[in-house]
Amino acid sequence: MDLKQKVIDRLNNLTKPVRSLGYLEDIALKMALIQNKEIPELFSDKRVYVFASDHGVVENGVSAYPKDVTYQMVFNFLNGGAAINVFSRHVGAKVYVVDAGVDYDFQDNPSLIKMKVGYGTKDFTKGPAMSRDEAEKCIEFGKKIAKDAIKEGADLLAVGDMGIGNTTTASTIAVAFGYNIDDIIDIGTPLDSEGIKRKREAILRAIEVNRPDPDDPIDVLSKVGGYCIGEMAGFILEAAHSKVPVVIDGFPTTSAFLISYYLDKDVINYVFSGHKSYVKGHKVILDSLNLRPILDLDMRLGEGTGAVLSMPIIEAAVKMIREMATFDSANVSKGIDQSLEDVK
Amino acid sequence: MDLKQKVIDRLNNLTKPVRSLGYLEDIALKMALIQNKEIPELFSDKRVYVFASDHGVVENGVSAYPKDVTYQMVFNFLNGGAAINVFSRHVGAKVYVVDAGVDYDFQDNPSLIKMKVGYGTKDFTKGPAMSRDEAEKCIEFGKKIAKDAIKEGADLLAVGDMGIGNTTTASTIAVAFGYNIDDIIDIGTPLDSEGIKRKREAILRAIEVNRPDPDDPIDVLSKVGGYCIGEMAGFILEAAHSKVPVVIDGFPTTSAFLISYYLDKDVINYVFSGHKSYVKGHKVILDSLNLRPILDLDMRLGEGTGAVLSMPIIEAAVKMIREMATFDSANVSKGIDQSLEDVK
Repeated sequence: MDLKQKVIDRLNNLTKPVRSLGYLEDIALKMALIQNKEIPELFSDKRVYVFASDHGVVENGVSAYPKDVTYQMVFNFLNGGAAINVFSRHVGAKVYVVDAGVDYDFQDNPSLIKMKVGYGTKDFTKGPAMSRDEAEKCIEFGKKIAKDAIKEGADLLAVGDMGIGNTTTASTIAVAFGYNIDDIIDIGTPLDSEGIKRKREAILRAIEVNRPDPDDPIDVLSKVGGYCIGEMAGFILEAAHSKVPVVIDGFPTTSAFLISYYLDKDVINYVFSGHKSYVKGHKVILDSLNLRPILDLDMRLGEGTGAVLSMPIIEAAVKMIREMATFDSANVSKGIDQSLEDVK
Repeated sequence: MDLKQKVIDRLNNLTKPVRSLGYLEDIALKMALIQNKEIPELFSDKRVYVFASDHGVVENGVSAYPKDVTYQMVFNFLNGGAAINVFSRHVGAKVYVVDAGVDYDFQDNPSLIKMKVGYGTKDFTKGPAMSRDEAEKCIEFGKKIAKDAIKEGADLLAVGDMGIGNTTTASTIAVAFGYNIDDIIDIGTPLDSEGIKRKREAILRAIEVNRPDPDDPIDVLSKVGGYCIGEMAGFILEAAHSKVPVVIDGFPTTSAFLISYYLDKDVINYVFSGHKSYVKGHKVILDSLNLRPILDLDMRLGEGTGAVLSMPIIEAAVKMIREMATFDSANVSKGIDQSLEDVK
C-alpha cells in the first residue's frame, strides 16, 4: 500500500465521520506526503521571510502610498510594530526581513538579511524592470536565503512582501503569463478610480513595450517583475527542492509562486496558500492552480500576514492526525460511512 | 466621540492601509464593543462546552451512526482523544463536557458537568420531543452552566454539540422558524440518499404533528428540539447578558443560537460564528442573520471544533489593535486612503 493510501486510511480511522474535518484532512495528507511520513511531524522552527524592494512603476501614480513607505515599513518590521510582527509573535514564528532591493541603505540588524540586487527596479512601462543577469541573481539570492534557513532548522516557511507598487508588478506578471487583465486588476491599497485607470494603462504599456515571453519565466521576471518577487520565486524553488513546506500569502507572493511554478511545476506539491486576499485577481490565480486558500478574511495587507495566520490551522491539521484516537482505541462504533469501500 | 468611532479611528491609524485587515478589523471592533473598551483585553480563560444528549428522532433511521456513539464519544472527550480535545489543547482552551440528556449514566469526572434533563428526547415525529417544563429546565440549566463558567473567570466561551441525530433536530428547528426545508437539509454525517429521504420525511412529519409556534421559541424547543440544544440556548443567553463573548460552531449550535436569538435579539452582539460548516443549511442561516463565519474549511464534525479553531484568529484581531504601531509612533507616511474623511 502506498503512503498516500496509508495516510487516508489513518484519517478515516480517526474518531470522526469520514471526511468530516474537510480541508484539514487534505492539509494533513499533503504535509505527510511532503515529509514522506505516515504521521507528519510538528514544526519546531516556523519562519516568515518578508521580501522588500522598490518598484520603478510607482512613478506612474499607481499606488495610494508614497514610495518612502517601503523603507519606513522595513524599520517598522525591524522594530516589531507591524502587523506581521504581531501575528508572528502570536503564532510563534520568527520574522526575517530581506532587503531585496529597497532604495535605501540599512544598517546591520540581526533580523535583516541584506540581499540587495539594486536600488529599486526601473519603470517597466519604458523598458525592462531589470537586466536578465539581475533576474537570475534574484533567483540565486532567494535560493540562498531558503538554503540558509533550512540549514538553521526551519521546518515551516512563509513568504511575505513589502514594496509600494508591488500589486501593479504582480498584476503585470500575471498578465504576462496569460491571465486576462480584467480578471486580475483591482485595488492594492485603496485607490480612486483614476488611480485604477493609471494602473491598468501602466500594465498594458508594460506588456506592449517589453513583450515578455510567457514560456521563459526569467524573461517575465526581468521585463515586468520586481526584485522582491524574483527572490521569493527562488526561495520557493529551493524550499520545495529541499522538501520543506512553504506558505504563500497574497497577490504579490502568488505572482512569485507563478514564476517558480513555471520554472518547475513540482513546487506546487510543497506550497500551501495561506489565505485568499481581497485583491480581485488572487482568487482567479489560485483557482486556476487548484490551490485552495486556508483563510478567507478579506485581508489585503501583504507582509506575509495571511500566510502566518494560517499556521495554527496547518498545525491543527497535523495534530489531528498525530493525536486523535482511532475507533478501535476509543471503543467507538463505526458508522456506515466508515464501512464504505471507496472513501476518499 | 462614541466608543465605536474611537475604535475605528484607532484601527485606521495603525500602520496598514485602511481596512486592509478586512474581517479581523470587524472582529476587533465587535470585541471592543462587547468589553466596552477602546483597546480590548486578551483572554486568560478560554473554554469550550460540549453539550451532549440523545435524540428520539434517530429511531427513524436519520443518521449514519448508531445511537450508542453519543455516550461512547462522551468517554472519548473525557479521555482527551477526540478532535475537540486535540484542537482545544492546540489553542489553549479547556474542554468541559455537559451531559444534557445522554441515555447513559456517567460516573463523576472533573471535566463532566451533569445537567441531565432526561435520558434522550422522545421521537418528535410522533409528538413533542419534551414537555414545556423540560424545555424551560434546559434554558435554566444552560444559564447556570454559563454563570458558573463566568464566575470562575471564563472570558472567551465556545459551544459545541454531540448527539447522534442532532442535525435532524437542528434542521427541524430551522424549518419551525420558517426556513425552507430544501434550503436547509443535506447531510449530517454522510448518509445514502434513502437516508436523506427519511430525514426529510421525519422533519416534515414533525412539523405536521407538532405545529411548533415560531413566535414562541420555548414551544419550538419543546416540540422539535433537543436537550443539548436547549441548554446551549440558555448558555448563549447568559453569556450575552454577562457581556462575555461566545463562539458558536456548526449547524446544531446555530439552531441553539436561533432559539436564544428569538428569545432576545441582542444576543447577536455577543456571538461570533467560528466557521461555516459543510452542512448546506448552515450558510443559509448565517447569511440570514448577517453573521459572518471566521473559518470556511468544509468541516462538519461538530463538538465545537470549528469554534475552537477560530480562537487564534479572534486573538490575532485583538492583538492587532493592542500591539500594532501607529503611523505617528512608527514614522510611516500616511497614504491617500488615510486622509479620506469618511472611512469606515
